[in-house]
Amino acid sequence: MQQIVDFILELEKLKAVTRKVRPLGLDRYENSAEHSWQLAMLAFSLAPQAGSPVDIDRVIRMLLVHDIGEIDTGDTMVFVEEGLKERKAGELGAVTRIFGRLPEPRGEELMSLWREFEEAQTPEARFAHAVDRAMPVLLNLANQGQSWRENGISYERVVARVRPPVQAGCPALWDYLAPRLEEARGKGFFGA
Amino acid sequence: MQQIVDFILELEKLKAVTRKVRPLGLDRYENSAEHSWQLAMLAFSLAPQAGSPVDIDRVIRMLLVHDIGEIDTGDTMVFVEEGLKERKAGELGAVTRIFGRLPEPRGEELMSLWREFEEAQTPEARFAHAVDRAMPVLLNLANQGQSWRENGISYERVVARVRPPVQAGCPALWDYLAPRLEEARGKGFFGA
Repeated sequence: MQQIVDFILELEKLKAVTRKVRPLGLDRYENSAEHSWQLAMLAFSLAPQAGSPVDIDRVIRMLLVHDIGEIDTGDTMVFVEEGLKERKAGELGAVTRIFGRLPEPRGEELMSLWREFEEAQTPEARFAHAVDRAMPVLLNLANQGQSWRENGISYERVVARVRPPVQAGCPALWDYLAPRLEEARGKGFFGA
Repeated sequence: MQQIVDFILELEKLKAVTRKVRPLGLDRYENSAEHSWQLAMLAFSLAPQAGSPVDIDRVIRMLLVHDIGEIDTGDTMVFVEEGLKERKAGELGAVTRIFGRLPEPRGEELMSLWREFEEAQTPEARFAHAVDRAMPVLLNLANQGQSWRENGISYERVVARVRPPVQAGCPALWDYLAPRLEEARGKGFFGA
């Protein structure tokens, strides 16, 4: 039991990992713990629109754990390609340490979910990536492009990073986003 | 698709619902969205210790939705019995409105999970309640009783509200908490 308690208290640190988007109507930045919760809810709601049939419970579990490596590395916008290899190594180190606190087989189960997400090969992982990539877009569309403008992210960069995974995992969601991103361009929601 | 987007943006409001516990090491109060994420992780980790065998994926789904009614009512400490009936009616109104935004059968599925948690009759709902009730205790034990001291909650009130649901849903967790709560009393972690 003490191992489980140590694990869950270590997860406290994900509440301190801030992202670049602000929750609608709030001044602060979003943290990766509440983001993970919202992704699970979006995945559940969107499951019938997944590109291939998915085991939605595995998608939910995957989304709940996929950001835990940020406890050591912090969150980095998907547009930052520099240092990617080092960040991924840091995240792997973090989850190895953190999931390793749990009694087996629980620790290995979480590790395997985390790896499945990273490898992005199964229908579940591809759907999870679509959801993860689309959520900040939905927030920015509702928020006058707040994190795009604050970080100088152009329309082209958003489309280049969002379209492939969203189209692969949830084509209907891309069909929804595409005209709205174009419209947002006209409204000046993007950075230079 | 627009219904799903409206739903997920409505859920933004749970990130603004603050609780009485502060995340470890942070000055701000915890919000109900990150709390829901952490409960799902605790339930997953603790599942082998549940009082009866449970469908852990249903427990996780239940914990992800159980606080959504607070979008209209706010969070209230479990020790506050006054106004309980009105709060519960307010939460029911909120989830009826919010889940009702989703296309069927998704909306009804969430409603049914929310109701199952509220009724606390199934092994899954009882285990979910144990996890929900224990998590702030674990934080307070690690936090010098911050929310108990700030709100004048005595040892006796904590035991009275925590012991029955935790013992019913996860007896091993109560066995872990009981001596630590006594020890915390000796250290002055409780309010008057």
